[in-house]
Amino acid sequence: MDIRSTFIKLDEKFSRFGGLEPRGITRLLYTDEWKAAVNALIEEFDNNGLEVVQDSIGNVSGKLVGVNSDETILTGSHIDTVVEGGHLDGQYGILAGLTAILYLKEKYGQPKKNIEVLALAEEEGSRFPIAFWGSKNFFNIQDNEIVKGLTDSEGVNFVDAMRQSGFDFRTDDSVRNDIKAWIEIHIEQGQVLEKEQKQIGVVTGIVGFKRYYINLKGEANHAGTTPMGYRKDVVVSFSEIVQRLNQKAKEIGDPLVITFGKVNLVPNVTNVVPGEIEFSVDTRHIDEKELNHFSKIVEDTIQEVATKNGLEATITLHLDEQPTLMNEEIIKTIEDSAKEVTSGNYKFMVSGAGHDTQIFSQFVPSGMLFVSSIGGLSHNVEEDTDIEDLVKGIEVLAKALYKLAY
Amino acid sequence: MDIRSTFIKLDEKFSRFGGLEPRGITRLLYTDEWKAAVNALIEEFDNNGLEVVQDSIGNVSGKLVGVNSDETILTGSHIDTVVEGGHLDGQYGILAGLTAILYLKEKYGQPKKNIEVLALAEEEGSRFPIAFWGSKNFFNIQDNEIVKGLTDSEGVNFVDAMRQSGFDFRTDDSVRNDIKAWIEIHIEQGQVLEKEQKQIGVVTGIVGFKRYYINLKGEANHAGTTPMGYRKDVVVSFSEIVQRLNQKAKEIGDPLVITFGKVNLVPNVTNVVPGEIEFSVDTRHIDEKELNHFSKIVEDTIQEVATKNGLEATITLHLDEQPTLMNEEIIKTIEDSAKEVTSGNYKFMVSGAGHDTQIFSQFVPSGMLFVSSIGGLSHNVEEDTDIEDLVKGIEVLAKALYKLAY
Repeated sequence: MDIRSTFIKLDEKFSRFGGLEPRGITRLLYTDEWKAAVNALIEEFDNNGLEVVQDSIGNVSGKLVGVNSDETILTGSHIDTVVEGGHLDGQYGILAGLTAILYLKEKYGQPKKNIEVLALAEEEGSRFPIAFWGSKNFFNIQDNEIVKGLTDSEGVNFVDAMRQSGFDFRTDDSVRNDIKAWIEIHIEQGQVLEKEQKQIGVVTGIVGFKRYYINLKGEANHAGTTPMGYRKDVVVSFSEIVQRLNQKAKEIGDPLVITFGKVNLVPNVTNVVPGEIEFSVDTRHIDEKELNHFSKIVEDTIQEVATKNGLEATITLHLDEQPTLMNEEIIKTIEDSAKEVTSGNYKFMVSGAGHDTQIFSQFVPSGMLFVSSIGGLSHNVEEDTDIEDLVKGIEVLAKALYKLAY
Repeated sequence: MDIRSTFIKLDEKFSRFGGLEPRGITRLLYTDEWKAAVNALIEEFDNNGLEVVQDSIGNVSGKLVGVNSDETILTGSHIDTVVEGGHLDGQYGILAGLTAILYLKEKYGQPKKNIEVLALAEEEGSRFPIAFWGSKNFFNIQDNEIVKGLTDSEGVNFVDAMRQSGFDFRTDDSVRNDIKAWIEIHIEQGQVLEKEQKQIGVVTGIVGFKRYYINLKGEANHAGTTPMGYRKDVVVSFSEIVQRLNQKAKEIGDPLVITFGKVNLVPNVTNVVPGEIEFSVDTRHIDEKELNHFSKIVEDTIQEVATKNGLEATITLHLDEQPTLMNEEIIKTIEDSAKEVTSGNYKFMVSGAGHDTQIFSQFVPSGMLFVSSIGGLSHNVEEDTDIEDLVKGIEVLAKALYKLAY
């Protein structure tokens, strides 16, 4: 069996669910496109002799049953996409897992432990304002009460959409105890591997992040009649905050990042000194202590600049996610596999984006690996990865699964 | 005749045209409210024995005829308002002029030269995107072709609105040559007089300004997966520009001002390093050389920061108004009057906002004086001035008109 042609065929087939052209794949939870992809996966597993495992909310997996069927090595990713996404985010993790299993099955026959590839129903939070619906249901930690109140952008209720699609809340409380390891392969969605010309990223952890919404209130004044000394200009204070925190983040160094992605001025007209600004601060680090330390600097700097300039600052911590460290043994297994397959052309790195793996790592030994994203692009129809790198990724995954299951 | 009670009565009467409560006066060019105010003025002039002078587009004045009726001392301001404006912007200049003339007439009888109070049809540019329609028509420098293409926010054509209101384009090319001086009294629309506790501002000039629209293009990237060193973050560059130019403007000092009033990010979401920013730069100074010098610094700084950070900068000069200096003799006349009336409690200052006087000063010896704005507020229902200051302003204006006309 040829990994490259098998993967290409699968990728072409599944990229049609939600359409790729002209603006990308839109395959949102419990839509027709999503359901068609799930059904095609079930058929694919079945046709390839994998045992199909389903739950009531739409997670589905294909299992190559091992000699000892009480222990499972699990791989996979999510089958939903963002609106107008690319063909690799999530989908690659599922199809790479399936390809790896078919390869291992043909080459080595029945494994000692089960090897199972899982398509999680939802990770992106693109249709309803909730993420990790798939992985949280897998471990029975979802909050059914919260989703009952959710509607999508067209006003469709979450529960109605789920039921119309043929699915429903879980009715059992069981959690599988056969999972001995989880490995997710994903595109990097950043430029590090490409810029450093590495084929594989061995993920050591997923960063934690804090997201703030900041409001500064100064005084709106006429841009012509208000001398500089009489102003309470929120844009000038915002700029000082950005300059100081950006400088400080660079001094502290990688993997710390800070982003001011959203800025809204009031009244936002050319001839008025702006009297109010709202902006977001997103800061991430893999080390919880470092993240807390820098977040304190963020809060203190904003307060200090506001006070100095006579502004009123409101600092709201909107999201606060802890960092997730990967399992040492799984990291080692992936590293050994990457070393063999790529002749050492890999690097350890952290994931700056969230992934299903952060849910899995709470329950089972977990690991992740990345392949390079061309131009760092993702969540976009232009998202792509060189086929050589996609194949190397599957080879590393297959080797890691082999080490764990045979 | 009592200046205070006469002005208050007039102000109460005219504030009803366009309504003051609850959200302010809206008296836009060629609307019913505007026409009612114009008609009431004509009646007011007539009832008070002033000769009514009108032109075809809606400028209207009341003239106290002098012994030498070939020479006129002119005062006034605009009768239109912004949307939901206050009761003093423009209206005060007309009613103060009328009150001053009635006072002089009663106290000193017929002047040597005519004294005339002019209500200009339009200055604000609030209904149609054109300003100074009144004063430009007064000197026959309006552009009739441009207004033919203009519509208001409800799609009404300028010419249709004008004609339905009973007005039309000027058909004669004459320009009055009897005007020997123009004085406009106006609220400051800034906080300088209030903060420095001065009753009268003797205006030495109206600032020139340059307004730029700037576009910076960097690279939109994932806020989590893009290390600081790999970013082309337009917000960080924008902040550097704001900090450097704000600092530089303060070093150069008053009356130089710079304002970044409008800022729009693309895509403007919390978890994406912004790849594009559009912002405005508005900078003003009374000295043309200083303004040009600083504008060069603005352009150079933006280009330098963009180049250093690998961004593409587009700098568009959108508006470029020259400074306007007041006539030395008129300044002296106003200063002498202010000195006498306020016991020296006045200050020389520049106007940071545009006024009809900048058109008049191109043709006749012109001057302006300001009264204090409470809290610097204007273009807003909260716009106000202490009645004592309003009366002092009328007294200074009356004294200046007396010096020029008697």
